[in-house]
Amino acid sequence: MIRYTSKLFNSNSIRSFTTNNNSKIGQIIGSIGVGKLNHVAIAVPNLKESMDLYRNVLGADVSEPADQIEHGVTTVFVGLENTKIELLYPLGDKSPIEKFLQKNPAGGIHHICLEVDDIYKAVDTLLKENVKIIDPKPKIGAHGKPVVFLHPKSMNGVLVELEQK
Amino acid sequence: MIRYTSKLFNSNSIRSFTTNNNSKIGQIIGSIGVGKLNHVAIAVPNLKESMDLYRNVLGADVSEPADQIEHGVTTVFVGLENTKIELLYPLGDKSPIEKFLQKNPAGGIHHICLEVDDIYKAVDTLLKENVKIIDPKPKIGAHGKPVVFLHPKSMNGVLVELEQK
Repeated sequence: MIRYTSKLFNSNSIRSFTTNNNSKIGQIIGSIGVGKLNHVAIAVPNLKESMDLYRNVLGADVSEPADQIEHGVTTVFVGLENTKIELLYPLGDKSPIEKFLQKNPAGGIHHICLEVDDIYKAVDTLLKENVKIIDPKPKIGAHGKPVVFLHPKSMNGVLVELEQK
Repeated sequence: MIRYTSKLFNSNSIRSFTTNNNSKIGQIIGSIGVGKLNHVAIAVPNLKESMDLYRNVLGADVSEPADQIEHGVTTVFVGLENTKIELLYPLGDKSPIEKFLQKNPAGGIHHICLEVDDIYKAVDTLLKENVKIIDPKPKIGAHGKPVVFLHPKSMNGVLVELEQK
């Protein structure tokens, strides 16, 4: 991995002068400039049971299911105070999460989604940094915004969706 | 799972009158009343490489590593605009994430952490709802606040840390 941020923008040097070793959360300093965590996506084997769990036991605000025919999933959003959990349930014969649920029959975290200001610029930067992108051409995602998926091999075993803000 | 929230507090009925089917994020309506997503914890096999990735490529604010001797992990916080990613690296001989990394050598999401107002009340409610808690007696976690871990079997395959706000 090439380090290409200048000394001036190194968060350590900034932090050591300003906050006595406490991380200053939310300070975006360069590169592709990730912003918010848009959501954590959890694949579930029983949507009704999961909705009940999040709504009635955890007490979160749970949306009604929405079929995303183009994406082969039914989605439910669980609103938290600062972000969302997205419940994913297979839709149709060729759902992209079918295989995941076969491997993880109880369900599990499928991906996390981070926001960026400019996804096209982000893809350019990531390719230069040899970060593996599943399909580097942004596609319109479930929220109507362009997205790409970064390969778990480049991201500590985590499938990371980048979404245009 | 027993549904014990009353019709009055059903988020659907509220939503259908107020927001035309769009989920109103952050509306906490009852039960254990989860609040913020405090962090997403990712176990990593090479802490230096992961810090470089998040700091220099993703452009996030990355803290210095902190050894949590009592918890058998070294932690690094990655500040996002609305929440944090916590990178976990094994510390000592009996690290609780050693086994996870043996199973997932590239790393992976280890748990997510949700905040609650009153962890003791939350534990009582969850036990009544037959949600499996790994150890129902809250312990002081890595941030100096009482925490419990909900078993993945009860949580769609996801290890969920609850932290007192």
